[in-house]
Amino acid sequence: MEGSGAGNGLGCSKVIELNGSRKKVEKPIPSCCRKGMAALPEAEAKLHATVVSGWFSGHRCSSDKNSRPLYYNNPMWPGEAHSLKVEEILYEGKSKYQEILVFKSLIYGKVLVLDGIVQLTEKDESAYQEMIAHLPLCSVLSPKTVLVIGGGDGGVLREICRHRSVCKEFFPALSIGFEDPRVHLHVGDAVDFLRNACEGMYDVVIVDSSDPIGPAQELVEKPFFQTIAKALRPGGVLCNQAESMWLHTHLIQDMLSICREVFKGSVHYAWTSVPTYPSGVIGFLLCSTDGPHVDFLNPVNPIEKQEAAVKLQSELRFYNSEMHKASFALPSFVLRELSTTLNDLPDGVKIGEKPTDRHVRRKFSDSLNAN
Amino acid sequence: MEGSGAGNGLGCSKVIELNGSRKKVEKPIPSCCRKGMAALPEAEAKLHATVVSGWFSGHRCSSDKNSRPLYYNNPMWPGEAHSLKVEEILYEGKSKYQEILVFKSLIYGKVLVLDGIVQLTEKDESAYQEMIAHLPLCSVLSPKTVLVIGGGDGGVLREICRHRSVCKEFFPALSIGFEDPRVHLHVGDAVDFLRNACEGMYDVVIVDSSDPIGPAQELVEKPFFQTIAKALRPGGVLCNQAESMWLHTHLIQDMLSICREVFKGSVHYAWTSVPTYPSGVIGFLLCSTDGPHVDFLNPVNPIEKQEAAVKLQSELRFYNSEMHKASFALPSFVLRELSTTLNDLPDGVKIGEKPTDRHVRRKFSDSLNAN
Repeated sequence: MEGSGAGNGLGCSKVIELNGSRKKVEKPIPSCCRKGMAALPEAEAKLHATVVSGWFSGHRCSSDKNSRPLYYNNPMWPGEAHSLKVEEILYEGKSKYQEILVFKSLIYGKVLVLDGIVQLTEKDESAYQEMIAHLPLCSVLSPKTVLVIGGGDGGVLREICRHRSVCKEFFPALSIGFEDPRVHLHVGDAVDFLRNACEGMYDVVIVDSSDPIGPAQELVEKPFFQTIAKALRPGGVLCNQAESMWLHTHLIQDMLSICREVFKGSVHYAWTSVPTYPSGVIGFLLCSTDGPHVDFLNPVNPIEKQEAAVKLQSELRFYNSEMHKASFALPSFVLRELSTTLNDLPDGVKIGEKPTDRHVRRKFSDSLNAN
Repeated sequence: MEGSGAGNGLGCSKVIELNGSRKKVEKPIPSCCRKGMAALPEAEAKLHATVVSGWFSGHRCSSDKNSRPLYYNNPMWPGEAHSLKVEEILYEGKSKYQEILVFKSLIYGKVLVLDGIVQLTEKDESAYQEMIAHLPLCSVLSPKTVLVIGGGDGGVLREICRHRSVCKEFFPALSIGFEDPRVHLHVGDAVDFLRNACEGMYDVVIVDSSDPIGPAQELVEKPFFQTIAKALRPGGVLCNQAESMWLHTHLIQDMLSICREVFKGSVHYAWTSVPTYPSGVIGFLLCSTDGPHVDFLNPVNPIEKQEAAVKLQSELRFYNSEMHKASFALPSFVLRELSTTLNDLPDGVKIGEKPTDRHVRRKFSDSLNAN
């Protein structure tokens, strides 16, 4: 969801470039992998979501020649959109990489939109930022060295800085103003950065990345996870943004499969509610490297027992230890789909149905790069 | 969310009737209680959500005289809407009570819409139906007598019938075709029905009701909960649809306050993800009457240990015991708002901030019936 700088911009245009050269795909494509298929014709692609009649729509919306509204699919969540009433447009502009829109909404406060996709709202950003930061940070004792990839809006950084033990973070992101002296900001390509990182350097890596279309596609592929595993200390922890269990099961399966190969510790999937993200949820992939065992489900460093716990808890709006544990409970349909790629299924949960051939598993990139 | 028959139709038109006679409200109204304030002018109210350019929108949408799109607020969730791409309209019509739309969507399968509000989709209905049914049914040993109020689509009934021990249900709803011989169907007003019910008759009451606007307003008021408590046996259980923790905190506070007075056992709030409901979540109020203690958080009758458990688990798409327990974990902002009205806060969770005067608490009905 966060599209703020891990690569060089969101990849919608990349999808469209691919569109022309894509040959017909014969096999049925699961709906959650139709992203590439739903790519927009080039002309339409230029029409990013706009504010029409005082409403912002997560789908691309414009008017046809008769002034009737036209709606287009976002390739990551074809066929649906969330709309917010705009009270006031605060900023509209274009950076080197992205179209930027900031507006005040009726219920969700200020909203940041990049290339037509809601990145955060004041009302629900805490759910995402607190979960992606504290899920990994509370799972290790005294995390000191943390790498954040993406996270250009600063929200993840804000959460990390609440942990007293943290003494240094690297933050490769497209943004400025991270004034905490503990922060080292690197603006550039995360893949290159990781390739040159010292082996075993980090306690925690947090990937607050854009959706895996275009440049960010690399961030769901095996070489990327391998460089992260190498940069983590033994028993170090990765927390990676991992899309929606309702919409992107096959992508999650693929990420989990790769991580099961790459990370020799634990591999888990957690999720949380974020109303303004597609399908109202966002997931997290939690992995640990070979070394001291990491028990993600029972955090060794609970937020309620940290230094300055009272202050911490009064500041946190979403995260607490109960939410931490609960976020690993998965609906039965998700357990079935992911059962071959998860470890440590909860006790007592039996999978009534195993994935079968009808759960056609495809590489996420197949539907984008079919040729 | 379910608007299928507890009273005599959804209340959007009732809100509008009230609109004209409502005097100016001087006090600031919290955003989650702005429902009545956001009521539509009478002329606009006739424009229920329609399919525009191949998309259904949860907000009311039509065109102005220049054919530009017009959007209106739904009074229960002003300022936001979820849209679904329509593949095919399967049914459009008007019953004695409601406007009905059934269409095939791209990702969510068939969608049932009443008076412009999505009631269920094939893809995510299991989350709602399974949770509202199995949360209470797994919390009592051998539930035998179950009353469902609302639930006209039959989904809750389908879930109840999975429990072998259930021998009889009453089902006052606006629907037909409930062919299980254990079902007794009553079409009529739920409030009247309960007033005449035998005292202590039911093990479980499930209220699968419409949103509390117009006729269904009675379903969030004290007399209704009192008749339910009377109809339940000692240690009997109520599960009541209880809106969104993101959007309707004050309504939830009021329901919890009332239930803490009326139900002398436990009172809890649980929630689950339902992508096509506003804000992507729906909540449940779980209460037990004075009598044998009911431990909602640790179900005494877990689904995995029931007769025909293997078959049951292969049929369930969402619910399992882990999801049951996890559904009671609440984000910190919700714990703060509800802390005075919940009992049994999870161990280890401390509330860093108590509700203060700035959390203005108002009767939900105030904003509808202010005069």
